[in-house]
Amino acid sequence: MGKLAGKAVVAQGGGPTAVINQSLVGAVLEARKYDCIENIYGAMHGVSGIVTENFMDLSQATTHNLERVAKTPASGMLSTRDKPDAEYCSKIFDVLKAHGVRYFFYCGGNDSADTCRIVNDNAKEAGYELRVIHIPKTIDNDLLVTDHCPGFGSAGKFVSQAFAGVNLDNRSIPGVYIGVVMGRHAGYLTASSIFAKKYPDDGPHLIYVPEHTFNTEKFISDVDKVYSEFGRCVIAVSEGIVNESGQPIVTTLTEINEKDDHGNIQLSGSGALGDGLGNLIKNKLNIKRVRCDTFGYLQRSFLGVVSSVDAHEAREVGEKAVQYSVWENVDGSVAIRRTGDYSVEYFLTPLETVAKDSKSMPDNFYDSENSTVTLAFKNYARPLIGELPTCERISAPFVQKILNRK
Amino acid sequence: MGKLAGKAVVAQGGGPTAVINQSLVGAVLEARKYDCIENIYGAMHGVSGIVTENFMDLSQATTHNLERVAKTPASGMLSTRDKPDAEYCSKIFDVLKAHGVRYFFYCGGNDSADTCRIVNDNAKEAGYELRVIHIPKTIDNDLLVTDHCPGFGSAGKFVSQAFAGVNLDNRSIPGVYIGVVMGRHAGYLTASSIFAKKYPDDGPHLIYVPEHTFNTEKFISDVDKVYSEFGRCVIAVSEGIVNESGQPIVTTLTEINEKDDHGNIQLSGSGALGDGLGNLIKNKLNIKRVRCDTFGYLQRSFLGVVSSVDAHEAREVGEKAVQYSVWENVDGSVAIRRTGDYSVEYFLTPLETVAKDSKSMPDNFYDSENSTVTLAFKNYARPLIGELPTCERISAPFVQKILNRK
Repeated sequence: MGKLAGKAVVAQGGGPTAVINQSLVGAVLEARKYDCIENIYGAMHGVSGIVTENFMDLSQATTHNLERVAKTPASGMLSTRDKPDAEYCSKIFDVLKAHGVRYFFYCGGNDSADTCRIVNDNAKEAGYELRVIHIPKTIDNDLLVTDHCPGFGSAGKFVSQAFAGVNLDNRSIPGVYIGVVMGRHAGYLTASSIFAKKYPDDGPHLIYVPEHTFNTEKFISDVDKVYSEFGRCVIAVSEGIVNESGQPIVTTLTEINEKDDHGNIQLSGSGALGDGLGNLIKNKLNIKRVRCDTFGYLQRSFLGVVSSVDAHEAREVGEKAVQYSVWENVDGSVAIRRTGDYSVEYFLTPLETVAKDSKSMPDNFYDSENSTVTLAFKNYARPLIGELPTCERISAPFVQKILNRK
Repeated sequence: MGKLAGKAVVAQGGGPTAVINQSLVGAVLEARKYDCIENIYGAMHGVSGIVTENFMDLSQATTHNLERVAKTPASGMLSTRDKPDAEYCSKIFDVLKAHGVRYFFYCGGNDSADTCRIVNDNAKEAGYELRVIHIPKTIDNDLLVTDHCPGFGSAGKFVSQAFAGVNLDNRSIPGVYIGVVMGRHAGYLTASSIFAKKYPDDGPHLIYVPEHTFNTEKFISDVDKVYSEFGRCVIAVSEGIVNESGQPIVTTLTEINEKDDHGNIQLSGSGALGDGLGNLIKNKLNIKRVRCDTFGYLQRSFLGVVSSVDAHEAREVGEKAVQYSVWENVDGSVAIRRTGDYSVEYFLTPLETVAKDSKSMPDNFYDSENSTVTLAFKNYARPLIGELPTCERISAPFVQKILNRK
């Protein structure tokens, strides 16, 4: 049986990651190996560039250029926040058909998987043979089925290194420090701050995630306890933490309520949550030096912090996407199965199993009583994040006092 | 003539940097070479640890431990915000004398240099021979006399890499992005964002520094112009920007007015300035997607982003401090003179020439009309920051449209 012949389109959707271009380049270089793929087009700004036929012919990009793009964070083909409905998807399908496209690879989160699903249905209804493969990516690590998502490891590494640094800073000049980390519904990224904790009294001392109700009184009592013990306190908090009624804490602290096109409250790109929590501590505990940073966009696009396992896997899911479509002639979403400690294998899961819904951290990854994460989480995440740079304390004996003044 | 015999004390003051431990370790390892230095003590928490005789005997730290500490950001001996007055300094002197200390090395900014100056005067008045050497450090790069300050290059590298990333992110999903950078009076660190700009349309498109009056109308008109041209705008702004009357912009936008122990308004550790400027843009220009990040403490203590030139020079100023005191038997502040492009030599400048006052960016480093920095700045700062990680765009031809729909 001959292979399905035609063009291929690759696109990137949703928020960028540090390694999303590894997946793009993995798909492009793999696609260029097969005669049945006549050209591989890149759509500018995700699906919006398909509808407007805004394609680059990546068959004509040099391998050297692509290899350098692979190392560059954020979406090399640019991205979109469009979440296509049925009508939008049928436009996508029209354009793919008009250009003789037989392979569509879309790298993104669960919304992108859903787009893949609808376009795939359109093709089936029209009796047009089209291979549609979703390539997973998200820093939130919240896709269903897969053990973890490419993009998470590098963002987690950034968060770890950031907290390792601010912990040292906070140890040098003590006080309370709050770092607000991305994560609307899933706490994986915030949880990654735990790898900053090397010595027993290191921060982050407290970690709060969206999966577990944030209780203001418990929070204040947690901070009080840590501050009494160590004279300082480093806190990692997800932007998406909610109260008992599921209301985002940021809305209970401030008047900010900007919503995006999908009706979601704006959590990133504003210092509101950190400042609100900081004021709470100042007022309730009368601690003077309270500092808050919102890591914001740095954590998903910082140039130069990449987990090598993450980069490697991001490349491979791109390659596998093309291989599944060409060799097995099937549609689906590429997923990762953990087979050892640490080894993985890739498999294809039906698009509908990944589309729309998302995953939260399992309960056994979080210790509600102590407001921190568990060993089970550390065991899960450590191989994905990898080794951190050197971070060591001075070890030397103290000197006998002579004057003994107060 | 025999060398002055006695103990040595080394301490670190003020805000931490990524390479301040290079200077500490440079001084300790150099001091351990000389018989005349009986022990080298490290004071915990800067000068406050001297007053309380809170010393570690760094003669008994392993070289391997110290070399790993050198690679660790933030003050390994911990820091202090104390700015000693005459009484405090005389306590310092008492303790140094009681412990038979003949060499005092203090790594910090202009306040630390001033402490050195006063302690040095105390020793002279008491007829007690004490070598006092100030070792320069600051991410703000605002010390007088020296060409530049250890600590600046690494912080500048962090700022460059952060803006390189957010520029790519902002290009993927367009809008206005504001990154607030540390710098109360000196704009060097904010200016370093320029190295994120690789391709002609890259951000940061606009840079605002404290040395040049921030005019709100000019700002809005600048943003409008850039946004009209590129459909997006990336802005780097110093936390310390002021209006015509020298009033910090953050106080004109918000009600926040927390002051620190020295009467300075709190600029870092709060998202107020970024959020205020963001709201201004939303209201005046009706641009919907406006995002603001305050880089905060990440920029001075992030684990894993170090300029190699900066690390090397930070080590050498520590070594030179000990060498000047032992071989030349003099007091002063170690300074760097740029001799080539790029080469340096070290020299000692009198303590009073560095104490108290600080340096602003020279006028020819900033282009007020275009709200950006000049080639003169780039030429000055590039060797200090060094090469950035790979950052490349896809280069491929666009594809002919077929459907040509709107």
